[in-house]
Formats: sequence, structure tokens, C-alpha cells
Amino acid sequence: MIEFKVLKNSQKSQARLGLLKTDHGLVKTPSLVPVATQACVKTLDSQEIEKTKSQILISNTFHLFLKPGDELAGDIHEFMNWSRPLMTDSGGFQVFSLGFGKDFNFGKVSSEKLSIIEKSNQPKSIKITDKGVWFFSPLDGKKFFMGPEESIRIQENLGADIIFAFDECTPPRATKEYIKKSLERTHEWAKICLKVKKSDQALFGIVQGSCYPNLRKKSASFINSLEFDGFGIGGDLGEKKSITKNILKNTIPYLDPSKPRHLLGIGKLDDMENIIKGGVDLFDCTVPTHYARTGTAFVNKGKLDLKKTKFLKDKKPLDKSCSCYVCQNYKRNYLCHLTRAKEITGLKLLSFHNLYFFNTFVERIREKIENNLI
Amino acid sequence: MIEFKVLKNSQKSQARLGLLKTDHGLVKTPSLVPVATQACVKTLDSQEIEKTKSQILISNTFHLFLKPGDELAGDIHEFMNWSRPLMTDSGGFQVFSLGFGKDFNFGKVSSEKLSIIEKSNQPKSIKITDKGVWFFSPLDGKKFFMGPEESIRIQENLGADIIFAFDECTPPRATKEYIKKSLERTHEWAKICLKVKKSDQALFGIVQGSCYPNLRKKSASFINSLEFDGFGIGGDLGEKKSITKNILKNTIPYLDPSKPRHLLGIGKLDDMENIIKGGVDLFDCTVPTHYARTGTAFVNKGKLDLKKTKFLKDKKPLDKSCSCYVCQNYKRNYLCHLTRAKEITGLKLLSFHNLYFFNTFVERIREKIENNLI
Repeated sequence: MIEFKVLKNSQKSQARLGLLKTDHGLVKTPSLVPVATQACVKTLDSQEIEKTKSQILISNTFHLFLKPGDELAGDIHEFMNWSRPLMTDSGGFQVFSLGFGKDFNFGKVSSEKLSIIEKSNQPKSIKITDKGVWFFSPLDGKKFFMGPEESIRIQENLGADIIFAFDECTPPRATKEYIKKSLERTHEWAKICLKVKKSDQALFGIVQGSCYPNLRKKSASFINSLEFDGFGIGGDLGEKKSITKNILKNTIPYLDPSKPRHLLGIGKLDDMENIIKGGVDLFDCTVPTHYARTGTAFVNKGKLDLKKTKFLKDKKPLDKSCSCYVCQNYKRNYLCHLTRAKEITGLKLLSFHNLYFFNTFVERIREKIENNLI
Repeated sequence: MIEFKVLKNSQKSQARLGLLKTDHGLVKTPSLVPVATQACVKTLDSQEIEKTKSQILISNTFHLFLKPGDELAGDIHEFMNWSRPLMTDSGGFQVFSLGFGKDFNFGKVSSEKLSIIEKSNQPKSIKITDKGVWFFSPLDGKKFFMGPEESIRIQENLGADIIFAFDECTPPRATKEYIKKSLERTHEWAKICLKVKKSDQALFGIVQGSCYPNLRKKSASFINSLEFDGFGIGGDLGEKKSITKNILKNTIPYLDPSKPRHLLGIGKLDDMENIIKGGVDLFDCTVPTHYARTGTAFVNKGKLDLKKTKFLKDKKPLDKSCSCYVCQNYKRNYLCHLTRAKEITGLKLLSFHNLYFFNTFVERIREKIENNLI
């Protein structure tokens, strides 16, 4: 059960301030949703995550289904000792991305992205039917089936406050024709998800349609016509900001404004203000923790690469205006040393800082909306 | 500057309760000294270490000299933001162990340990002179020299409360003849260390002598005759408990009882009570954190291997009698999942628990001494 209240609509953009009430507490929107793929935000424990100003996490249905299994994980609030709001995605993106390799026939290649895809080591054979998708576990090669019913059953076992409908994610090189067909399937699955859900978890429907304005409009209108508690905006959002902006333009106006909107899997630091201005309330993103594990810290003036020796002489905090635990306790020279010495502790401290930094960044965007600046 | 006070001598053994005062606070002895090799207890940050009941840490002169360099690290209290007591070892063990390979001529092999040594990947060429030792950095192959003067200079730069004299550590297969010669060198170096030290850091002399009672007695008497603030007991302590016991019997009685005694690099859980009964006040040990990183947790009933799937169904804390942060917040099923899913967070949580568990274990030994039980 969730309640969502729009507290303020910007006069300058589609941005808005909202309050999301869940059985596990409140979320001020817009909000970043840090990613706890395997019921764990990488390098941090749940008590630490709370201290990064994170309000809500998203965990991964596909990964938890395979390991340790949704029955064993059970309610992941309890499993990971996270008493605050939580989402699970539907598993769709992960299952379908197993088939993004070139062997799988999605029609003719429509973009130059093929070379990127070819480099991926993902297994290439999945079989999509109208009921769902057969796939081989990348962990042990075992064959599994996942469709809307399975996804909802798993997500009910995992017990997050917000769950997502099972959708087909088309690969970047899919043809428009394929995407059209796929969209029909996603819409059928959306209806099934609503029908089979027994829990009182909030269910968000997912808008697809790749980068085609007409398909996005069609999908948004259709998903909006069903009894979802909120919306996910998924699939290929384009690599260019202008495309993302265009997609939001062709999606947001077709969605009931009283319901929350979650943009799936995006959120580089410089994307955030734009997607929020486009009308997004929630968005998940692995950037803060992923970059941390490569030795990169986000600061007001950009990024610091702490693998560089020059920081060994730098006794300033990562960001002097940051009030996080790491900036209060450690200096760049030590963080550089830990990074270069391959100490796990360094990855942890950078992950903490980056999450805190991103959450603070979004907090400031909320203040900008409050103060009519965007 | 340190002050050491023996608060109680056991009537049943050589065990004793003591209080060590340093410029960075107190240490109740006997005490475990967790290892912060690279100015970091692996997987934990300094604020976390404080919460594991750790009273004092030992950092590694050799590693910090090579990376980031003692000049760059500077005072490691400040560098790693650890405001409590701190030791550095002399670097001797690490430098000399570079030469433990079979190519290096230490005389005839005296034990069956050669096969273990042969399997090691350590570089095999160091050159020992009466002034110190030439070695190649295992990081980049650069040639360095370290002797008593260099070791003290580095340790002065690192600024720990307690530093150690530079000693030659003989390999397990060294002959008695070689060990005798080496001991003379170690004793000469001990005098040089005392002479060149300019800081007011406490300096501990190191007793060597391998497993030969006469050499241990000789070394203890000699080191005791110098103006050290305390003693380290180093070198080959034997793999069998009976040998360690014998070494302590031939060392402890020859040391001034008013000064603290540190046993270097030992401390498996079931060794602790014995070495404390043998008269040891302090001992460093990587076991709690090393085992944690292999997925092993220490509990009252022994060890748990959290890689085993059976723990995925186990919703008990690691140890129900443990009051550490991990046992208060997480269950075995989640810790097993994190371990199996190779999440860094799991390594951190197990390291935290193990350190807390070891420190609590030693706390109970202190209580036993207090209550005349050992």
C-alpha cells in the first residue's frame, strides 16, 4: 500500500515535489533510488545506507530469484535488515538482456550499437513466447522460465513496498517492427500482472516503446488506462539527453499526474535535473556505487580519480562542503592510499560518500523546485 | 612515551593483568593487537575498528615504507584517523621473509618445512650485510636498503606510540649455526636502534633465537640488559603449542617484569590463553580478519563456514551470546547470502564480528586472571 501526494508543481517545468507514503516510511520526491542488486548496496551495510540520506532502495528480482532464491530470501526488508521503503524491479531487463547478443534474431540491426553488444559476454540464447521467456541461468546454466505470473509471485515473496510489472525490454538494435510487436506483449503482460497479484504491494506498470514517440504515447496511454499504483518508464531511453527528453515529453503527459513516475536505470549526475524537469519522481542508478568501486569520487567541482598519486599529498576532504561521515573523518591522501593499495575499506568509504553526495544533490534539486528556481 | 603498570600477577601461571598508558590512551593487558598492515584493518574503517573493542593496532613499517612511503603517510594516527594507541613493527620480518625461498643460502635445511617454503611465490634474493639488508620491492622491483637506522627513521616518521627494533628473522629452515650468527647481528642492531632513536616513542627490543632454549635465554638476557621500554618476542615460535610454551619458558623469566611483552605474529583463538599463561601481555594476529575474508566466522562453539548453503535457512545470529553490531543486526542466512554472492559487505560484517569476538575472548581471559581462575 502506498499513498502519493503531489505537494507542488513547478511553473517552469514538469518538475514536482511529492511525498510517497509506504508501510515502511516516507519518501520525499524527487528521489534517487540506490540499487541493492543482491539485497545489498555494494560495499555498504543497511545501517550505513541509512546514513547516506537514502530514502528508498531497489532490489533485483532476477538476481535474488537465482541467488539465494526468493523463497530463501523471503521478505527482503527483514532479510537485509532494511526497515525503510523498498522496491523490486520485475526482472524483465535482466532476463531479456541475456538475449541482447548478436545471435538472437531481433530483426535487422537498427543502430551502430552492435559493436558494444558484441563485446558483452552475456549468454545469447533466450526464447521469448507470449507467456514469458525461457532462459539459462548465467550462474549455473540451469533453464528457467519467467513471465508476468512468475515475476509477480517472486516479487510477492520478496515483499518490497513497490513492485513492477513484467515487461519485455527490447535490445538497442531491435527494429521498429519488432518493438511494436514486443509492446503488445508487454501490454498483455501488464494486465496479467494486475490480475495475478494477491498482495497489497503497490504495483507500477511499465511504459515501453523505445525511442519512438508514437509508441511511447501509445504505451503511456495504455498503461495509464489500467489500475496501476504508479508508473515505470523503461527500455531504451537513448544515449543522448535530447532523446531522453523527447521520450519524457511523449510519456509524462499521458500519465495520471496523481501517481508517481519512476525512470528505470538512469541517473548520471548531470542527467538528474533534466529528468526531474521532465516530470520524473523517482529514478534508480548504479553510478554512485559503481564509480566508487573504480576509485572515483563525485565532488562539487566534478569527479576525483583517487587512483592518481597526486592525491597522496592532498590533505583536504573529498569535498569541503560535504557533511558526510567520510568527509568529516578522512582526507584525500588516505582515500588515495586505500584505493591504490586496493583496500576494500577505500571502496566502502567512496561508495558512502558518493551516495551521500548524490542524495544531497537531489535534495538541492527539491529545494530548487520549492524555491521556484526550476 | 608509555607507562606500564602490572596490576595483578596470577598465582597459577605467568599470566598478569596490566595497564599500558600511551599518549593516545590506555590499553588493558593482556590485549590482542589487530593488524592494520597498510594503515587499515582490512575491510573496516577506523571508526568501525573502535567499535570492535580493539584497544591498540599494529601497522606495518615495510608495507607503508613501500606504499605510500613513510614521508607521505606521515603520522599514521592522523593519516588513518585513529586516535587510539598504535604500534609499528620494524619491517624486519617482511624484509627477511623475501629471502625465505630455497635459493638463498641459510646453511643446511634443518626441518621438513622446505616444501612449504618452496611453494611460496616470494622473490628469493635479498642480501644481508652487517649494516642491514638489500632487497627488491615486490611492488615494482626497485632496490632498497633497510637496516636499524632506516627502520627507526621510518618508524619515527610514522609516529606510532610503540615502535620495534630492527631484527633479523631467520627462515624456518635455517641451521643453528646460522641462527647463532644472526642473533649477534640482531643484538648489534638493537643497540643501534636505541642509539639512533630521537623521538619519544616507546621502543621495544626483540628477542630472537628460534626454537633453541639456550639462544632464547641468551637473547632475552641481552635485550633485557638494554634500555628498552618493552619487549617483542619474535621469530620462529614453532608450529606446535609445546614449542611455543617452551620458548616462553626460556624467555619470559629473563625479562624485566615491569616492562610489557609483545608476542609477534601469533594468536589463533586456541593459542591465546596459553600464551597469556606463559606471560605475554600483547600479541598481534591477522586471524580474525583473514578468516573473515574466507567466509569464516568465529563463534562460541567453534567456527562457521558461511559459504555453506545450509546457513541460507538459518535465521539465528552468528552467535546468540555476542553483543556485536553484526549479531545485533544480521542473521546467518543474510551473511551466508552475502558471502556466496561475493558481496564485499559480507567480508566487512564478518571481519567486524570476528574482531569483536576475539577482543571479547581476551576480555574474558582478563576476567579469569582477575578471578584467579588461570
